[in-house]
Amino acid sequence: MDSFQKEQWHADMIAWRRNLHAHPEPGWLEYRTAAFVAAQLASLGLEVTAGRGACSSKARMGVPDAETIRAHEELALKEGVDPDWLGRMKGGHTAVVGVLRGAKPGPVIALRFDLDCVEVGEDEGSEHLPRRLGFASRRPGLMHACGHDGHLAIGLGVAAKLAASANELAGEVRLLFQPAEEGCRGAQSMVESGWLDSVDYLFCGHIGLKSKTLGEIVGSVSGFLSTTKIDAVFRGRAAHAGESPEQGNNALLAACAAALHLHGISRHGGGATRVNVGRLEGGAGRNVVPGEASLKLELRGETEELNAYMAGETSRILAAAAALYDVTCDWVTVGRGTSAEGDVSLIPLIEKECAALEAVGSFIGTLPFGASEDATFMLRKVQEQGGRGVYMLFGSPLAAGHHHPSFDFDERVLGIAAELLVRLVLACPYWPAEDQSGTFN
Amino acid sequence: MDSFQKEQWHADMIAWRRNLHAHPEPGWLEYRTAAFVAAQLASLGLEVTAGRGACSSKARMGVPDAETIRAHEELALKEGVDPDWLGRMKGGHTAVVGVLRGAKPGPVIALRFDLDCVEVGEDEGSEHLPRRLGFASRRPGLMHACGHDGHLAIGLGVAAKLAASANELAGEVRLLFQPAEEGCRGAQSMVESGWLDSVDYLFCGHIGLKSKTLGEIVGSVSGFLSTTKIDAVFRGRAAHAGESPEQGNNALLAACAAALHLHGISRHGGGATRVNVGRLEGGAGRNVVPGEASLKLELRGETEELNAYMAGETSRILAAAAALYDVTCDWVTVGRGTSAEGDVSLIPLIEKECAALEAVGSFIGTLPFGASEDATFMLRKVQEQGGRGVYMLFGSPLAAGHHHPSFDFDERVLGIAAELLVRLVLACPYWPAEDQSGTFN
Amino acid sequence: MDSFQKEQWHADMIAWRRNLHAHPEPGWLEYRTAAFVAAQLASLGLEVTAGRGACSSKARMGVPDAETIRAHEELALKEGVDPDWLGRMKGGHTAVVGVLRGAKPGPVIALRFDLDCVEVGEDEGSEHLPRRLGFASRRPGLMHACGHDGHLAIGLGVAAKLAASANELAGEVRLLFQPAEEGCRGAQSMVESGWLDSVDYLFCGHIGLKSKTLGEIVGSVSGFLSTTKIDAVFRGRAAHAGESPEQGNNALLAACAAALHLHGISRHGGGATRVNVGRLEGGAGRNVVPGEASLKLELRGETEELNAYMAGETSRILAAAAALYDVTCDWVTVGRGTSAEGDVSLIPLIEKECAALEAVGSFIGTLPFGASEDATFMLRKVQEQGGRGVYMLFGSPLAAGHHHPSFDFDERVLGIAAELLVRLVLACPYWPAEDQSGTFN
Amino acid sequence: MDSFQKEQWHADMIAWRRNLHAHPEPGWLEYRTAAFVAAQLASLGLEVTAGRGACSSKARMGVPDAETIRAHEELALKEGVDPDWLGRMKGGHTAVVGVLRGAKPGPVIALRFDLDCVEVGEDEGSEHLPRRLGFASRRPGLMHACGHDGHLAIGLGVAAKLAASANELAGEVRLLFQPAEEGCRGAQSMVESGWLDSVDYLFCGHIGLKSKTLGEIVGSVSGFLSTTKIDAVFRGRAAHAGESPEQGNNALLAACAAALHLHGISRHGGGATRVNVGRLEGGAGRNVVPGEASLKLELRGETEELNAYMAGETSRILAAAAALYDVTCDWVTVGRGTSAEGDVSLIPLIEKECAALEAVGSFIGTLPFGASEDATFMLRKVQEQGGRGVYMLFGSPLAAGHHHPSFDFDERVLGIAAELLVRLVLACPYWPAEDQSGTFN
Repeated sequence: MDSFQKEQWHADMIAWRRNLHAHPEPGWLEYRTAAFVAAQLASLGLEVTAGRGACSSKARMGVPDAETIRAHEELALKEGVDPDWLGRMKGGHTAVVGVLRGAKPGPVIALRFDLDCVEVGEDEGSEHLPRRLGFASRRPGLMHACGHDGHLAIGLGVAAKLAASANELAGEVRLLFQPAEEGCRGAQSMVESGWLDSVDYLFCGHIGLKSKTLGEIVGSVSGFLSTTKIDAVFRGRAAHAGESPEQGNNALLAACAAALHLHGISRHGGGATRVNVGRLEGGAGRNVVPGEASLKLELRGETEELNAYMAGETSRILAAAAALYDVTCDWVTVGRGTSAEGDVSLIPLIEKECAALEAVGSFIGTLPFGASEDATFMLRKVQEQGGRGVYMLFGSPLAAGHHHPSFDFDERVLGIAAELLVRLVLACPYWPAEDQSGTFN
Repeated sequence: MDSFQKEQWHADMIAWRRNLHAHPEPGWLEYRTAAFVAAQLASLGLEVTAGRGACSSKARMGVPDAETIRAHEELALKEGVDPDWLGRMKGGHTAVVGVLRGAKPGPVIALRFDLDCVEVGEDEGSEHLPRRLGFASRRPGLMHACGHDGHLAIGLGVAAKLAASANELAGEVRLLFQPAEEGCRGAQSMVESGWLDSVDYLFCGHIGLKSKTLGEIVGSVSGFLSTTKIDAVFRGRAAHAGESPEQGNNALLAACAAALHLHGISRHGGGATRVNVGRLEGGAGRNVVPGEASLKLELRGETEELNAYMAGETSRILAAAAALYDVTCDWVTVGRGTSAEGDVSLIPLIEKECAALEAVGSFIGTLPFGASEDATFMLRKVQEQGGRGVYMLFGSPLAAGHHHPSFDFDERVLGIAAELLVRLVLACPYWPAEDQSGTFN
Repeated sequence: MDSFQKEQWHADMIAWRRNLHAHPEPGWLEYRTAAFVAAQLASLGLEVTAGRGACSSKARMGVPDAETIRAHEELALKEGVDPDWLGRMKGGHTAVVGVLRGAKPGPVIALRFDLDCVEVGEDEGSEHLPRRLGFASRRPGLMHACGHDGHLAIGLGVAAKLAASANELAGEVRLLFQPAEEGCRGAQSMVESGWLDSVDYLFCGHIGLKSKTLGEIVGSVSGFLSTTKIDAVFRGRAAHAGESPEQGNNALLAACAAALHLHGISRHGGGATRVNVGRLEGGAGRNVVPGEASLKLELRGETEELNAYMAGETSRILAAAAALYDVTCDWVTVGRGTSAEGDVSLIPLIEKECAALEAVGSFIGTLPFGASEDATFMLRKVQEQGGRGVYMLFGSPLAAGHHHPSFDFDERVLGIAAELLVRLVLACPYWPAEDQSGTFN
Repeated sequence: MDSFQKEQWHADMIAWRRNLHAHPEPGWLEYRTAAFVAAQLASLGLEVTAGRGACSSKARMGVPDAETIRAHEELALKEGVDPDWLGRMKGGHTAVVGVLRGAKPGPVIALRFDLDCVEVGEDEGSEHLPRRLGFASRRPGLMHACGHDGHLAIGLGVAAKLAASANELAGEVRLLFQPAEEGCRGAQSMVESGWLDSVDYLFCGHIGLKSKTLGEIVGSVSGFLSTTKIDAVFRGRAAHAGESPEQGNNALLAACAAALHLHGISRHGGGATRVNVGRLEGGAGRNVVPGEASLKLELRGETEELNAYMAGETSRILAAAAALYDVTCDWVTVGRGTSAEGDVSLIPLIEKECAALEAVGSFIGTLPFGASEDATFMLRKVQEQGGRGVYMLFGSPLAAGHHHPSFDFDERVLGIAAELLVRLVLACPYWPAEDQSGTFN
């Protein structure tokens, strides 16, 4: 690729990113985004699977209700999304996989990107670059405020470059475009659809986070917290608070008691745990004993066991808090992430490829993460099969933190990340099945 | 009035009620409603005062924020509300007073009606009469679900009838159309604007409530609970719940603690008290330590002293709950009702007029109320000056309880109530100032 | 009785009171006290029933554990209590009944007195009269701080006087000496032993309370609150709070949650209710997750229904609070009082007898009580059979409030109350069974 | 020392241990124990400092009240404790230091032992060895259930052996006998009295804990949690719970709210924290709004900073919980332990000496501790001055866990530990002041 081609390649990625940024879609509703990706991959000649073939319907978590899904499907149609792609993805099956097969035998390599936006209204000030340049979100209350638009552009850039270098390619490359990363809802459904089976190498990554310098690459973050996301609804009975308060069954106070007692779950001698009731709302009129209340919470643990301890305590507390006020509580797990560790054995390889890239100014082998991601389900699946994987960071300064209305990154990170991924795909060593003893040492 | 005139009069009231029902407006934003009333009163020849002259700006409680007010004013203009009336009522001053003066000296008599709707979305089913007949609310989330539309129609009916009978009239009749009765926010502002000064007789009333038979009249309800309505906001600091929960100051848990401890305020040996946190919401994302939370609550007491006890406890608890989580709490009183008793000495007069009305099938002297109303401020004012007042009930079957989406009443109650009020106005005895000793015995 | 005899009679009562005051005993353990009473009654020639014959074993509530009972029995023996009386009362059956039969037919009249002390250490200061005069409690932590010692002296005084006036007596007089009034534990057991059967008149009463003037008599207090007394124990699992707090099941936090939520039981539109966790203790070492905690609480209601509402809420809350922390909760009802009203039809009779007593300076017909007493079970029983009863107050200034270490009353009240009761016994009208229509009007 | 002498030495230690075991004394009240130690050390020819010279009066924490102190001093006198020693230790100054000086220059070496018992009643069953052999605690509710009696015997054994080997000794040996280790109350007072100044080597240790095999030695435990022990008292106002509950200020509910909210202190992203309300009690009579309540709690953190975070949160929560119920809260720090790490550079030396001891069967270099100890203040002091220290474990099977009524250890551990300590004292290398660069490598 000469410098002119490279410039064009970078420009394409930026254009894709801006297009996607302007049309953010929440998890399981990424119809326009997924169709955009699918069409692009298809046009490059990849084998594209979209919809139910790319994600196990049952294994999806936190899927919106039927009415919301239908409304988004109608909107997608109105906005001109190809009815064919839409048809395949109907009912909230917005995963896309693009496969590229090399001429020679080689390893199976998977790259994972995420499709969804967050529910944040984008900064309306003229200081905000996407606003000034006219690609700010056109959907009120929705925004690519986590950088997934960038991830998608990187994925499409990698696809374009690899498609153009098909003759160099050995083995098989699977580009996984996952729905509903926010809330840890989508990865497991792609694992259960089989797309991580026989994968030898998995590369995931994120723009920014703890790496805020352009040109910095972190080879593998460690210490993902296992997590469970839960939605709970308390239902009691409303009553007039003046005349007959005793006839009410106060769902709001039950929810409040649950929130307080959840935060009081005993610390664990075995390691770090977390609990957060991030959202609670309940009640209707001021003079009505509240008949309903809901809360959104998450649990975390340094290990699966610690997270399971938190989940066990939570179940009991939700039921007991309901009993305190003679109301019911229904809850559902709407997201899950597991603990996982990247393969440090891959770090030398990544470091070597970074060293060959002029745009990479600094390299950090590993960094602790301290948060949760559902890419961990993919990592675990690959590792269980004897494969290796990492979750990298692509450094970029940020206009504001992730999920903030003013979030933005330096678009030059797109080219750097895409180039690194392409190099990694081509550099991954191959040990035929009969020789699985190979290591990097 | 012959029977044809009477029929026409009743039909007018029903038509007014339906027009107003279709355009419900919340407290302090009743621009269309108040302009409708004002124009009607003016056309009948009453002296009309609308806006700042009819309500003390400072004494208003629970006024919406400036932006909401502006939005409703723009909507009113768009909907064709007379810019002249609108201009007088700008900034949330939607009170209207119509005055009719008799030829002879006589008592000053005030009648009070309420303008606002409640924030409930109206029943969309075809069973719901206002829907079937096409006068259901055209404003999503707003509905005349308490019967104030009926009260307004009664008030306009009384105005029409008295205007037509001006020659019979002695003294002065003031028709008070009060904004923001819901939440007990508006009455005190009309008291402080002087419209209850020198009033000898005050008649207030409500359709339905504890009187659910058409043709039944309750002369005077007793036992209004003193009440205070409070909005509180807790503000802390958001933080990432996984990485650094300790950096958050959890406003949501403070609000939950406040709610639970408010409901734990000690019972009082001196009489009945009430507390209700009717609404609580807080937090943003599931994985963010909540930085803000708010609650809407109300307190009540059998007496002013008991309500004051509850308010004192509440202030301390709100502050202490904030301190528990190192957050701030700002709260504001958005409504107040006082305890009051109607004048039982008026009951024989009312009973006598009821007896003369064929449509009134049964009469109940007094009934305990068990709830709150800010008409009590008007009652107290009148009584302090030596006047007398009552709060009556106009019986009607209800399709569903007050504030319910399917609420509806029997429109025949309009004619009954209006006729009774007209008769009462004309029957009120008069003792000139030099002879204030008169009583009904 | 001449004035010399009267003086002697008064002096006897004061001596009995001081003797009993010096040896206070808690409920169901009043061995010395009950034997003292029984011996005195027997010496006067009354038919005395003590022990299981005077109280239904099963119907006793809040009986101390076997070891405590044994210890008190041993102490009583050591102190010289007659082994015969002690033998009859063994195992916590300390009720005593003395019966006096008149020569002529007449009504059955019951008088009730209470035997037990409270668990308060008596004032050790020299200002405290019982201390100065040398009859202060000789038992640490125990004191007749409610006046039951006075009630007993009155009862014995009445017995002496009536025994001496046997020839005037018609019908039957039953003097009921009830154990365990504190905590409302003993009355029902005497009801179920049959001693209130066929009673026509019941006179109960108390020194002081709301009547703090010597010579004042209140004919009948009204508005006893129905009450339930509950002891609850939470049992979990202790654990080292530093190494493995998660292995604990925190019984103390469960008890704390129970206490807070019990005080948050919704007020009731139907009338006054009360809840009080009067005592809570739990935990052992500072660094041990508490494995056990207990609480003592009481509930009240203006009516039986309201008290039942409180009891229902309490059961659910205790169980739910235990579930919050995965501990168990066992609770037991250790006391009960019902709501009751004295018979106002008796007031004229009492007033008349008071008028005849020089020492009675003022008479109040009825006074609201606002507290609980288990004499109500006796009142109800008598009323159910068509009899009549009252609970009177015998006015006396108090050195300090009831249950206070410095509590003391004016001993002159003993003579006044005894004389009044004797007069009432002799004055009660009699309608033979065939003529139950008699009334006082 | 020949085998006969050794046997005698071991027998002495066992005898001392049993004598001390039979007379357990709680922290700051170890009059008999400390006098026993002081007399023994003096008889061996050590320079003995006892009382105020051995512990800074001001730096003591959690000292019992004056009356308790006086009662124990009287008891000690009655039991024949030497009035001279007692006089020096009066007022709760029960620390003892014995110093032995070598003929030659050498390092300053300190050994620390602890004097106090725990408040646990000793197992009364015949299975319990101390009971069977007749040396069980003679003081109800008190017991050497943590092994400090063994530590003292080891200390006296070391003193005896070193006194007998004085000619071999270089430098200075300080035997520190610390009061009030339970609750982390005494160590800091010995640090502030200067006894750790210029110490080059500090050896502390404990029987059992995580080392439950006879003959096992752990060279240095790591990961002491920083800790703060707090006693808090809430004081409000009592009131009759039936008549006028509103007149009470409920100290018990404030304490309950404090307990629950303390356990809800947010987890910290920086590491492990702990909180435990180990004891709570409050209230008096069942029917009295509780006017007073108290709690005993402890906080811990992996680092000083984390413990300080917990302490900061706790202060605020105690004050806010008091404010919730309009009561006061006074709290006092009654114990403190800091985080600390033993010097791993000493481990090879310890391992070498262990290897030379036949009775030591296995050696573990380091083990995580996971709990708190105030020996850490001594360790820190020594390390700040450039010295080195460790906290060892002396393995022994335990009849039941520490602080359990059936706790007991294998007395053979006394000889092993004493022998090891003597060898270490003699083996510690010495670098004269001018050459502080010496290391073990």
